[in-house]
Amino acid sequence: MSQHARNQELSWAKPLSVDLFLKVLNVTFLHPFVAWMLPLCMRAQAMRWAHPAMQIAIGYASLLTALFFLDVLNKQIAYSKPRRLDLSEEVIVITGGASGLGLLIAEVYGMRGATVAVLDVKDLESGEARGVSVYKCDVGNKEQLAKVAVEIERDLGTPTILINNAAIVNGKPLLDMEIEDIERSFRVNLLSHFYTLKTFLPGMVRSGHGTIVTMSSVLGQIGAANLSDYAAAKAGLTAMHRSLTAELKSTPDIKTILVSPGQLTTPLFNGVRTPSSFFAPELEPVDVAKEVISAIDAGSSAELALPLYARWVGWMNVMPVGVQTILRKLSGVDSAMKTFVGRSGGEKKGAL
Amino acid sequence: MSQHARNQELSWAKPLSVDLFLKVLNVTFLHPFVAWMLPLCMRAQAMRWAHPAMQIAIGYASLLTALFFLDVLNKQIAYSKPRRLDLSEEVIVITGGASGLGLLIAEVYGMRGATVAVLDVKDLESGEARGVSVYKCDVGNKEQLAKVAVEIERDLGTPTILINNAAIVNGKPLLDMEIEDIERSFRVNLLSHFYTLKTFLPGMVRSGHGTIVTMSSVLGQIGAANLSDYAAAKAGLTAMHRSLTAELKSTPDIKTILVSPGQLTTPLFNGVRTPSSFFAPELEPVDVAKEVISAIDAGSSAELALPLYARWVGWMNVMPVGVQTILRKLSGVDSAMKTFVGRSGGEKKGAL
Repeated sequence: MSQHARNQELSWAKPLSVDLFLKVLNVTFLHPFVAWMLPLCMRAQAMRWAHPAMQIAIGYASLLTALFFLDVLNKQIAYSKPRRLDLSEEVIVITGGASGLGLLIAEVYGMRGATVAVLDVKDLESGEARGVSVYKCDVGNKEQLAKVAVEIERDLGTPTILINNAAIVNGKPLLDMEIEDIERSFRVNLLSHFYTLKTFLPGMVRSGHGTIVTMSSVLGQIGAANLSDYAAAKAGLTAMHRSLTAELKSTPDIKTILVSPGQLTTPLFNGVRTPSSFFAPELEPVDVAKEVISAIDAGSSAELALPLYARWVGWMNVMPVGVQTILRKLSGVDSAMKTFVGRSGGEKKGAL
Repeated sequence: MSQHARNQELSWAKPLSVDLFLKVLNVTFLHPFVAWMLPLCMRAQAMRWAHPAMQIAIGYASLLTALFFLDVLNKQIAYSKPRRLDLSEEVIVITGGASGLGLLIAEVYGMRGATVAVLDVKDLESGEARGVSVYKCDVGNKEQLAKVAVEIERDLGTPTILINNAAIVNGKPLLDMEIEDIERSFRVNLLSHFYTLKTFLPGMVRSGHGTIVTMSSVLGQIGAANLSDYAAAKAGLTAMHRSLTAELKSTPDIKTILVSPGQLTTPLFNGVRTPSSFFAPELEPVDVAKEVISAIDAGSSAELALPLYARWVGWMNVMPVGVQTILRKLSGVDSAMKTFVGRSGGEKKGAL
């Protein structure tokens, strides 16, 4: 397995990344509770309140506390009250759930007692999984989807959670792609979201609650050479998520979650190399799955971006064009696809 | 005509906008040359160099001068050397050029002696225009486009400038749109760009020079209620432009121009009201046409955003989500479409 081969290439430094450091900092030096320990200890040592070290320690802890509450306030303003999830009642539809990230999420929810329907053109990579039913379906084909939707409704009930995850990659310059490849890319990567929303959202609106997860990509915000169709589709998904979130304001218990991951180590992007594993580590599907699952479980709307650089990439678009040019060069975003081999090695056409 | 009716509603304050003030400032207080006048005058009055007023005046003028040169440097880094245009040699293809902004650009280039081909499903709104040939064609239909491309090549020669301007608006919540409307929207607003690029770009690559203009929209960056399909398509165009620009680095004389206008007073968005005509003035097509034409004439790549707020809208995406929510509310972006009547009054289906 290519996953295996990749693991053997890893050097000891590979897991070290800015994300790991931040994770450690977040529960140590950057944690308000930990920060308050310092002035408390100083006070226990009978240090005067007016001592500069004491004042700096108190100031630092106060700042972290203020930021913590600002973040709470920020989410209070942006998102309505979380909805209550009872996993035994939830029916989850996951597109492209036969492998990679989708499969992982399907397996976790299946094991935790939810009813999971996977829509994919392939069989489950793992053979079978507890609580997971597979419906063979090309989500870019609205007729197939309509037929499968009827079966799901009959077999499992009305879906309450829709995870739109299916994607394909052509990975070629615009001029080298066949028009049919481009059309297929937009059908699977972009239109399928509209198809599944038109199919499953009315049921959520009727029952008054639901969760919609949109798998976008950090590439949508900046584009990349050899990914014009993929980047365009993903950019479209982000805009669609924002529009839909605004339209669903009147049904506050239908939650929308946008996921903008960076480069994943899934077969979809086999062979692609990111230039810096420290600043832009490749994500393992399990990292993304964990975040997505905890966001769904929290019952709130959310915008997830990981690893760290994915949260900052929007800043690139507000920089002067000259700086953007330099950053593109440094990040290697336009040359990363040169080593792309795709899902099945030689064959560059992606699959769900 | 609705344009006429609209003009009669205008109050004297309507033309006043932050854009107008900035335009005046840019040639007065914010102009380096003007700023250097001040210390010169002071010196002429024999004011000492060390005088605070003198030093402030010199500092201010130096700052403006530095910013001016930084801007030049910025563009030097981002864009390659401009290409030379000879309008009598250029063959210009404009999609959706039978009315509004597209027609305006077509007419100007026709009058200036270029060969212009308009692709549209309708006849020219103005009856006919000098130097402008109309080819009846739905640019969302690749078969029609292929046929028309052969005719253009035979009648006018190989196109060197492609202005992808055609767009339609459904203007309905996602759940109220028919799937066919959504598909049509993506065909015309997004796929047509790939179709025309696949059709006309190879000719430009062969001759080594050309210009591609992509009409996106500020809405792509933020989305808007009732415009999920339109915003998604426009976001896709911006990402496609960035990817394509990166792919065309090896042919530096093919220029790419991205246009992200705000709300235009064209029939496409009839009835939509922006909340503040001071901070977010509605654009007249002529304002956008002027900018697009001068960017094409300059022979350089460019990213145009107008009016002023369109240049700043990217900042919204780097704000905390709570602030984004408040800004969306204040800007009225999600309620602007409530008064939308569309191109033909009652009928909401757009046309090219």
